[in-house]
Amino acid sequence: MIAIDDLKFKDNLIPAIVQDHQTGEVLMFAYMNRESLEKTLDSDIAHYWSRSRGKLWKKGESSGHIQHVRDILVDCDMDTLLLKVRQDGAACHVGYRSCFYRNIKGDIVGKKVFDPEDIY
Amino acid sequence: MIAIDDLKFKDNLIPAIVQDHQTGEVLMFAYMNRESLEKTLDSDIAHYWSRSRGKLWKKGESSGHIQHVRDILVDCDMDTLLLKVRQDGAACHVGYRSCFYRNIKGDIVGKKVFDPEDIY
Repeated sequence: MIAIDDLKFKDNLIPAIVQDHQTGEVLMFAYMNRESLEKTLDSDIAHYWSRSRGKLWKKGESSGHIQHVRDILVDCDMDTLLLKVRQDGAACHVGYRSCFYRNIKGDIVGKKVFDPEDIY
Repeated sequence: MIAIDDLKFKDNLIPAIVQDHQTGEVLMFAYMNRESLEKTLDSDIAHYWSRSRGKLWKKGESSGHIQHVRDILVDCDMDTLLLKVRQDGAACHVGYRSCFYRNIKGDIVGKKVFDPEDIY
């Protein structure tokens, strides 16, 4: 077992990459503090730290788009996490399954699965 | 085309998730500054900013484990990049194909492809 104390938090946060556990699609990127990681480990439901709102953030709390955590990988430097999840609905608040729905050329490469106006 | 000026750098850096373009395996996580992103776009070879060494870092420069960039995705908030690459050798300096070779239970889940002593 890797202990939470083994992980390297920077300014109390650790980056978390979120990936669909079956398709491998990268869904989003967020930060966790110690409390959100503990809640995630306890519940198997992804919790993050919202830097914009300055508070604990249970993903999907308002939208219902919960992330069920299947595994958590740790990188060689112990300063980044990779969550393997089953995503209910979509990860992106804009309505795409993944937040990475555009490439740098501006092409839409992702799949839209809901209309934000129906949800929020 | 999304312009580099559209991207949100924080302390001159933007996080970059690196994924195998064929298998979807997440290989590593790093940061780019503007110069490293420009060099990456110009050459289609991944360049990062090494925070530990405080300098531009062409991935694979000493090991030969170059990353050939196939596409760069941008997230909804324009503050994170996802590089789709063809990885020569392995991404991780410890010898695993991916830096995310362990889970939080401490199990080895990744594949070792070289012995670091043979390379560095």
